[in-house]
Amino acid sequence: MLSVDEAIAALLGDARCLVGAEACRLLDGLGRTLAQDLVAGLDVPPADNSAMDGYALRHADWVDANSPLRLSQRITAGSSPAPLTEGTAARIFTGAEVPTGADTVVMQEHCEAGQDVVQIRQIPAPGANIRRRGQDIERGQRVLSAGQPLRAQDLGLAASLGFATVSVYRRLKVAILSTGDELIEPGEPAAPGQIYNSNRFTMHGQLSAWGFEVVDLGVARDRPEVVRDKLKQAAEQADVVITSGGVSVGEEDHVKGAVEALGALDLWRIAIKPGKPFAFGQVLGKPFIGLPGNPVSVFVTLLVVARPYLLACQGLADHKLRPVTGKACFTKKGSPREDYLRVRSTANGLELFPNQSSGVLFSTSWGDGLVQQRIGQDIHEGSSVNYLPYAMFSQLGR
Amino acid sequence: MLSVDEAIAALLGDARCLVGAEACRLLDGLGRTLAQDLVAGLDVPPADNSAMDGYALRHADWVDANSPLRLSQRITAGSSPAPLTEGTAARIFTGAEVPTGADTVVMQEHCEAGQDVVQIRQIPAPGANIRRRGQDIERGQRVLSAGQPLRAQDLGLAASLGFATVSVYRRLKVAILSTGDELIEPGEPAAPGQIYNSNRFTMHGQLSAWGFEVVDLGVARDRPEVVRDKLKQAAEQADVVITSGGVSVGEEDHVKGAVEALGALDLWRIAIKPGKPFAFGQVLGKPFIGLPGNPVSVFVTLLVVARPYLLACQGLADHKLRPVTGKACFTKKGSPREDYLRVRSTANGLELFPNQSSGVLFSTSWGDGLVQQRIGQDIHEGSSVNYLPYAMFSQLGR
Repeated sequence: MLSVDEAIAALLGDARCLVGAEACRLLDGLGRTLAQDLVAGLDVPPADNSAMDGYALRHADWVDANSPLRLSQRITAGSSPAPLTEGTAARIFTGAEVPTGADTVVMQEHCEAGQDVVQIRQIPAPGANIRRRGQDIERGQRVLSAGQPLRAQDLGLAASLGFATVSVYRRLKVAILSTGDELIEPGEPAAPGQIYNSNRFTMHGQLSAWGFEVVDLGVARDRPEVVRDKLKQAAEQADVVITSGGVSVGEEDHVKGAVEALGALDLWRIAIKPGKPFAFGQVLGKPFIGLPGNPVSVFVTLLVVARPYLLACQGLADHKLRPVTGKACFTKKGSPREDYLRVRSTANGLELFPNQSSGVLFSTSWGDGLVQQRIGQDIHEGSSVNYLPYAMFSQLGR
Repeated sequence: MLSVDEAIAALLGDARCLVGAEACRLLDGLGRTLAQDLVAGLDVPPADNSAMDGYALRHADWVDANSPLRLSQRITAGSSPAPLTEGTAARIFTGAEVPTGADTVVMQEHCEAGQDVVQIRQIPAPGANIRRRGQDIERGQRVLSAGQPLRAQDLGLAASLGFATVSVYRRLKVAILSTGDELIEPGEPAAPGQIYNSNRFTMHGQLSAWGFEVVDLGVARDRPEVVRDKLKQAAEQADVVITSGGVSVGEEDHVKGAVEALGALDLWRIAIKPGKPFAFGQVLGKPFIGLPGNPVSVFVTLLVVARPYLLACQGLADHKLRPVTGKACFTKKGSPREDYLRVRSTANGLELFPNQSSGVLFSTSWGDGLVQQRIGQDIHEGSSVNYLPYAMFSQLGR
């Protein structure tokens, strides 16, 4: 049996970026993966500028609080100042360029201005209130690297360096397919024995949230030729193929045979709960992931096991799950499998959903994250535990 | 001076849902806000079904490990079984409906099947391996409430209950506007004194990530009539208007006057760092938020102060910031303002970006979250601190 960490490592060992680069307008870049390093082509700030609304002067020109200095110019943000005339001061505003010759800015609250003069009541140290050229970023500095996802602040940073477009990886296309004669679509009337297909919606939602383009192939009926045909379509249209259900060894599971006919398949026994069985292989040369059929197993294995692999295929450099620390409000003995418990955070700590069966999708919707219970780890009320808030899995926030 | 909590509470006191409801296909629902309660119209599962591939029987019909039972039917998932003939067993697969009369399912590993008979070597307790009708969700149960955001698993849950469309709130339209003569767009050559407008991109990205529709009005030059005209356009097209820069009391700040001419404005002194000044008011009856001009101040105040208000305007019921617990790798004395420190999580804990100036946007891009340092709170190396990973702010993950 593979541990969860071993399964993730095995998948990552097989992963490579499957998508090429394309140009993207910076304003459209949110959630995309950089395909280039961004290197500053200029200093930030580009010139010494004022950190305050106030007065710029040469520190040595100041005599005392009662000796006025003549105002020789007025410098607003965006204008280009003349060198400062000796023995004078310049009115200056936040963000405006400090003129050559000035070495200090005095905040306006410490000054008294007349018509053409200013009295500086209180002088700060030389160099005060000036943001130096290049103090934030020096020209030639790499500020973002290929393989990083673009978050809001990264767009702001790239903009501040003048980038109007950036090179990003094309969105990874992930095909999804569910199998089962019992499955019907929401909106249709349900005959006895039929159930609504939820896995399609869970997978569609998660993959979209992670920034992938979903190729949605719906449901394949439990006939070998139908499954084979759908898998072929999936491999032709997408970079990666994912199915839910149909990979166990039961007589009615046709995915296994179809994948083997079109490529290759390994059934993995991963020590994860919920989550058996998990399959990995290829269909017509495209990576294939076979998730279990139970709704919670789909949710958990997609998130814990498949996600790091998919992020790597998208070209993302960092695909680690980073649990935060939480406090358990419950007691639960460890088991021989790593257990991903559906919990909800409350003022007292993490509360456990009472029914942890892999069939109960409501447990994932009721809560706001998973507790990662390691093999054999006993959790007691008040224990520190590894907590994975769902919010942290979004591509945008990585 | 208002504390951060007081400022958020004051804004929320003024907030109400500003958007109407509209129908949305479930597959398009990711990240949208529910405008209706979702109440189960059926039991989940809809009938007793098998949790295993195996054999269904009446427990009382079993004699011993060597007495075969005749196989009277074969029940696959999705089919509708006949009542079980007394004294027989039915072949049954995972998810298939348990026939009337059967009360127990035996896993196939404990059985030996012949052509038309099965020998049950090991019998479990009566009722074993059957998922009961309604055990996950009972008809009439409310599973999601108006005001909740739709995450991937919520889409799956709604699908499992047969919902093909749901009622969601229209996306909140948020207009953004930056002000300043010094600002130019990325891609343009920068003359001396000019800087690239990063706030537009940071705001655009954050608001998009939170699921809002951005009405992007670009930059207004520092002329009263230009600013007034742009603000008017913003209020006409959007539900909320947000500006960056131009709300301090400097001579070159025209936003204040323009907002007062078109509506009303309050300048707030919030004990937050970075983050002064902050303004709240209305323009032609639409809520107006004036953010500071410094890039990091924009990022922090939008996230910490404005976001809860905007989520409430979108109809979301829960808009609380929920810090997780982190461990500081640094020492920093408390100050009279609540400080939002840019940090990065490492194996050893949270590392502080060396330059915490509000002008250095790179600090937000370098890191992966904020440490919330309360007023007067001294942080020592190894202290537990409130940590806000950026990932947790995404709308999808809430």
